[in-house]
Amino acid sequence: MEFSSKLLENAVNEMSQLPGIGKRTALRLVLHLLRQPKEQTNDLSKALTQMREEIKFCKSCHNISDVAVCEICANPHRKTDVICVVEDIRDVMAIENTSTFRGLYHVLGGKISPMDGVGPHDLNINSLVEKVKEGEIKELIFALSSTMEGDTTNFYIYKQIQELEVITSTISRGISVGDELEYADEVTLGRSIVNRVPFEASLKM
Amino acid sequence: MEFSSKLLENAVNEMSQLPGIGKRTALRLVLHLLRQPKEQTNDLSKALTQMREEIKFCKSCHNISDVAVCEICANPHRKTDVICVVEDIRDVMAIENTSTFRGLYHVLGGKISPMDGVGPHDLNINSLVEKVKEGEIKELIFALSSTMEGDTTNFYIYKQIQELEVITSTISRGISVGDELEYADEVTLGRSIVNRVPFEASLKM
Repeated sequence: MEFSSKLLENAVNEMSQLPGIGKRTALRLVLHLLRQPKEQTNDLSKALTQMREEIKFCKSCHNISDVAVCEICANPHRKTDVICVVEDIRDVMAIENTSTFRGLYHVLGGKISPMDGVGPHDLNINSLVEKVKEGEIKELIFALSSTMEGDTTNFYIYKQIQELEVITSTISRGISVGDELEYADEVTLGRSIVNRVPFEASLKM
Repeated sequence: MEFSSKLLENAVNEMSQLPGIGKRTALRLVLHLLRQPKEQTNDLSKALTQMREEIKFCKSCHNISDVAVCEICANPHRKTDVICVVEDIRDVMAIENTSTFRGLYHVLGGKISPMDGVGPHDLNINSLVEKVKEGEIKELIFALSSTMEGDTTNFYIYKQIQELEVITSTISRGISVGDELEYADEVTLGRSIVNRVPFEASLKM
């Protein structure tokens, strides 16, 4: 792609560093900004820089937060002895939306993925193990994606804490609510049969 | 969507103002920036602000340029009496890539589109008409998209200059090179039959 302007080329190149945004999309976005008032570009730039410079991570659960201890960890009504282990803030938001979990979270910041150069030491695993070693935690719920990387991460953490007195569980796998049985993959269908729940219990959900 | 951080929320909101980027995608992009070194965010913000503040439009053809008269208009080897009328810089880049056009461009900056609130006075149409009135231009080539808005814009300009001594043409419509006849829509196929070209001429392309 040849540009008639260095400024434009520079903006497109920076924009296309974002995941899933190629040169063409970047050009479309940048041209859109050019058609809008200058304030929009300024606001966008300012919001991004400010976020990157000033954002904090909760020192207890490592979730993104504006204060040292996030709202969830600081909430006295939440159970402090159940910890849900998740990959990032999106998973916290998704689980909070269900209103079914009243414990605390621990945000790993990713999954172990040798292909992407992410090892256990790049994640917030040590602080989780330390937290469990203090002995106050009764249950750890692994809520990572059901992928090779997610399973590896679960197993790595499990190995570190298996000697300690803590119950570990993973979120259940099964057919999604509203899904047709015939279109489900066999692993999921198999798991949902093995992990079946009493019918009376399912009525209460 | 509820966020645990105002800074994050602000960044996501600004990002999702871009066309085709919803809240979820914006969150994914912003979280990606958080995982990258601070420099990447700073470079992106700077490139965008600088582009928006400093970019110029060629005073002759209205194309994006870093100088007052763009490279194409300033090139002494180009024919100054043929003007190709296009919507935006992407079309200039696309036509330049074909290496088939050696004249100059006139960038309208959009198409007439009442639905989007874009009227003739929001586009660089007056300066085009003035240019034609000077009498130096022999041919205007309309190269807008073949949509309702493109056709409207072509016709609007045509009406303004039809009394003047200038040839007007539009780029030809027809079956794309490499396309199967049976999958072409009937309007395109019909046009490509009506606008057929001598076989000997087609051999030279």
